[in-house]
Amino acid sequence: MNAETMRIGIAGINGRVGRLLREEVVAAGATLAGGSTRNGILEPVADAASPICPIFTSVADLAKVCDVVIDFTNASTVCAHARDLAQSGTAWVLGTTGLGEREQDAVDVAARQIPVVQAANFSPGVTLMTRLARQMAAALPGREYDAEILEMHHRQKVDAPSGTALAIGNAVADGRGIMLKDHMEVARSGHTGPRADDAIGFAVLRGGQIVGEHSVIFTSAHEQIALTHRSFDRRIYATGAVRAALWTGTRRAGLYSMDDVLGLA
Amino acid sequence: MNAETMRIGIAGINGRVGRLLREEVVAAGATLAGGSTRNGILEPVADAASPICPIFTSVADLAKVCDVVIDFTNASTVCAHARDLAQSGTAWVLGTTGLGEREQDAVDVAARQIPVVQAANFSPGVTLMTRLARQMAAALPGREYDAEILEMHHRQKVDAPSGTALAIGNAVADGRGIMLKDHMEVARSGHTGPRADDAIGFAVLRGGQIVGEHSVIFTSAHEQIALTHRSFDRRIYATGAVRAALWTGTRRAGLYSMDDVLGLA
Amino acid sequence: MNAETMRIGIAGINGRVGRLLREEVVAAGATLAGGSTRNGILEPVADAASPICPIFTSVADLAKVCDVVIDFTNASTVCAHARDLAQSGTAWVLGTTGLGEREQDAVDVAARQIPVVQAANFSPGVTLMTRLARQMAAALPGREYDAEILEMHHRQKVDAPSGTALAIGNAVADGRGIMLKDHMEVARSGHTGPRADDAIGFAVLRGGQIVGEHSVIFTSAHEQIALTHRSFDRRIYATGAVRAALWTGTRRAGLYSMDDVLGLA
Amino acid sequence: MNAETMRIGIAGINGRVGRLLREEVVAAGATLAGGSTRNGILEPVADAASPICPIFTSVADLAKVCDVVIDFTNASTVCAHARDLAQSGTAWVLGTTGLGEREQDAVDVAARQIPVVQAANFSPGVTLMTRLARQMAAALPGREYDAEILEMHHRQKVDAPSGTALAIGNAVADGRGIMLKDHMEVARSGHTGPRADDAIGFAVLRGGQIVGEHSVIFTSAHEQIALTHRSFDRRIYATGAVRAALWTGTRRAGLYSMDDVLGLA
Repeated sequence: MNAETMRIGIAGINGRVGRLLREEVVAAGATLAGGSTRNGILEPVADAASPICPIFTSVADLAKVCDVVIDFTNASTVCAHARDLAQSGTAWVLGTTGLGEREQDAVDVAARQIPVVQAANFSPGVTLMTRLARQMAAALPGREYDAEILEMHHRQKVDAPSGTALAIGNAVADGRGIMLKDHMEVARSGHTGPRADDAIGFAVLRGGQIVGEHSVIFTSAHEQIALTHRSFDRRIYATGAVRAALWTGTRRAGLYSMDDVLGLA
Repeated sequence: MNAETMRIGIAGINGRVGRLLREEVVAAGATLAGGSTRNGILEPVADAASPICPIFTSVADLAKVCDVVIDFTNASTVCAHARDLAQSGTAWVLGTTGLGEREQDAVDVAARQIPVVQAANFSPGVTLMTRLARQMAAALPGREYDAEILEMHHRQKVDAPSGTALAIGNAVADGRGIMLKDHMEVARSGHTGPRADDAIGFAVLRGGQIVGEHSVIFTSAHEQIALTHRSFDRRIYATGAVRAALWTGTRRAGLYSMDDVLGLA
Repeated sequence: MNAETMRIGIAGINGRVGRLLREEVVAAGATLAGGSTRNGILEPVADAASPICPIFTSVADLAKVCDVVIDFTNASTVCAHARDLAQSGTAWVLGTTGLGEREQDAVDVAARQIPVVQAANFSPGVTLMTRLARQMAAALPGREYDAEILEMHHRQKVDAPSGTALAIGNAVADGRGIMLKDHMEVARSGHTGPRADDAIGFAVLRGGQIVGEHSVIFTSAHEQIALTHRSFDRRIYATGAVRAALWTGTRRAGLYSMDDVLGLA
Repeated sequence: MNAETMRIGIAGINGRVGRLLREEVVAAGATLAGGSTRNGILEPVADAASPICPIFTSVADLAKVCDVVIDFTNASTVCAHARDLAQSGTAWVLGTTGLGEREQDAVDVAARQIPVVQAANFSPGVTLMTRLARQMAAALPGREYDAEILEMHHRQKVDAPSGTALAIGNAVADGRGIMLKDHMEVARSGHTGPRADDAIGFAVLRGGQIVGEHSVIFTSAHEQIALTHRSFDRRIYATGAVRAALWTGTRRAGLYSMDDVLGLA
């Protein structure tokens, strides 16, 4: 199945990501087959050229006209969507986060019948960075190469370090066969003492409207190797989800990650 | 076999890399079992604490007292060393470059009887960077992600781009299934026209005594992911070669690369 | 005069920069007193909330209701605008480029009667960078500190190095009392030979939709100091022009630069 | 007076900085006229080619054969050196830190009779960076441009942020007419809340044997301007002190800073 003939649906098409998805589906050359909203109305976006499509009030109905549904809604909808999509044999690109055990079970059950791509972050760059960070950590021993993670976000961000920074930290720890929580060094200030072997350090910058920048830096006495990711706009999450949707066209049932979509697994 | 009991020999122990290797073998906790020189004399280095060891005038004799020989000599010695080391069953870490077809054949033959680690650059960071660049290029399509390579070296360097930059460029091309020579964009100046899809750009900085810095940068409309390596001193080549030597202790005969040593292959 | 009571006019209010200026004037808390267009019509912008204002078909008329006019039109209008604004005693923020000798003379004459802020680039960051690059070059001798300029722009850009990179290069040369054209090193490729003392090197990256990034890097054997500017969006030019407009409120007649506005002169 | 005829003396010539100064004086083409040590003995350094010179057991005697004395000793010697150098009319380059009020008074008194260059850090790059950070902060309002300071040092460093990072922070605060202690944001972790206007943020990285890297980053919604300094080796402090010594050759009595030496004041 190629992009042109692929029928893509968007659950929650009026949502923040849903609005971007409309444009990205069309930009990718696929067919925007429909969307679901609570009230059956497609809200216009600022850009008058934004594509329109049939609107459904249930994902069950939307699923019938689609090869794949992209879903960035909320955790309370997951069990129903899992059942509906499995029933109609429609693939599922799932970006909803905050799933409990029950919701995750429902996803796993659905994945026995349909292809499901599930990810917390659909940015190809962040997916790749997390994957590569694990490999780097595995190849560069912690006794010799000090791992540090630096992140910068906009001035409104209220927590630190960012979730993505922690995910990268977990990947580094995983690559070294240690637990992040036992080796985190955050918030260095005052008399810190020397850096511990195997420590994973975090440093946090805030300013302007930076969408998100992350670096993981491995430094030995003789060399340094660093991986840096910068998000320029939030549209990247939509772009990545559409890429995942197109990828499902040739897949069998199963639970997949963005690593699979990018050919990294 | 562990580091303490591993007997390491250094061919060309008075050479530029050989001098560094002396110290790195000892720093790694291994036994400096001997070295070879043309005249049988171990030249002192500035640091009086530099380790001493038995000196041999042939690699054949050196091989007899070693589990592994590290060899950064020159291409004219390769055929003889291949035969000598295979004969005594001593592993070989080979950093000599400029090999012709005849020399490479000799290496391949030896590798049927002994473990051989052969690399043009033993820096773990550069090895890792080249490997990861290939993966990044494979995961990030050239139509969407523009690949650029930036390098900086000391003011005395007389050629551009650096050999390592070109190696990274080849890895990017390989990851995309294209040939570097068909897609290189170097020396942009004046009216260049827009950047081509799938182009691999190179930019060159020179200054001070920079040992070597390389970046590969993938930029789309929405995100950027970059990998950067900085060499702080040339000692890294010796450190990496000793790491390779220790690694051979548990290997069967075969031709290996630094990718194998780092567990990347 | 404070921002609230300042009446700002925009010549060419339907132009690319004019559209952004509308919003930035209001965002700064000033009064958008009017705009000029050829046909007397204010074209709407995508964002429905974009401010509206009285429209005039001549700058002479616009000037009568304003304390200051911001002008990003084209060189052919400069002589008329100079005369009109001087006559009504209205300050002038002039971003039009490509002026010939005759146009520049007209600007100089007007500046005897009104405050004129003239700049090729109203970004505070670029203005500051150019200024600081000159100071750095003056303080760091070229025999010891190698100066390099790196720029990155979007993939559509057809020329290299960028105009801003060349302006920074001129500032470096100026700081060292040399001429840029005698010391430029661009497009290093192949056998380049060693870097010359006092050389000013340029390196060029292209990719994605990067609005503009510039670095000037001074590297000695012992240290490196670098200044980097990144433009996130083109709106910065409008923001800077409005800042200049507000600044004229307390000024006497004279020809000023963005250096004056930023308090750098 | 030119470099060749300038007679430079080194107080505490066997000290850590004193050893480097020997070589840097000669490298600069000046005359190494003598040194002082407690016991009258010049200790050899590893490099056999290190220059030798007459040794004195008092700075009073050393001063008689020198045009300028470079002094990185300790605070307890400052009052005596001030008197001795003023008496013999010998210029003084003073890098000793930790001076109390009494010692600083002695320096001030001496500076009425001889040229004194006093600095906590003789690196031209760090001096320049501190100066420029103040200018940047003054030109870029804190309401619009968020100031952040990032530093990285070797893994053994036991305190954070570094003294130089704090000095840069003070320069930023000074440029904005605020006090650093009222606006520091260090050690962001957990629920931090949004960034405050006028905040000056600090972030800390540790790893390898990094001598010292500092960045000050100003980020608005539309642009970012950053200044970065990297020290490659500690020799830069000696290089800068010799530059200051040569500079005194043409100066009248007075108390000078590295800003004066670099022509920044």
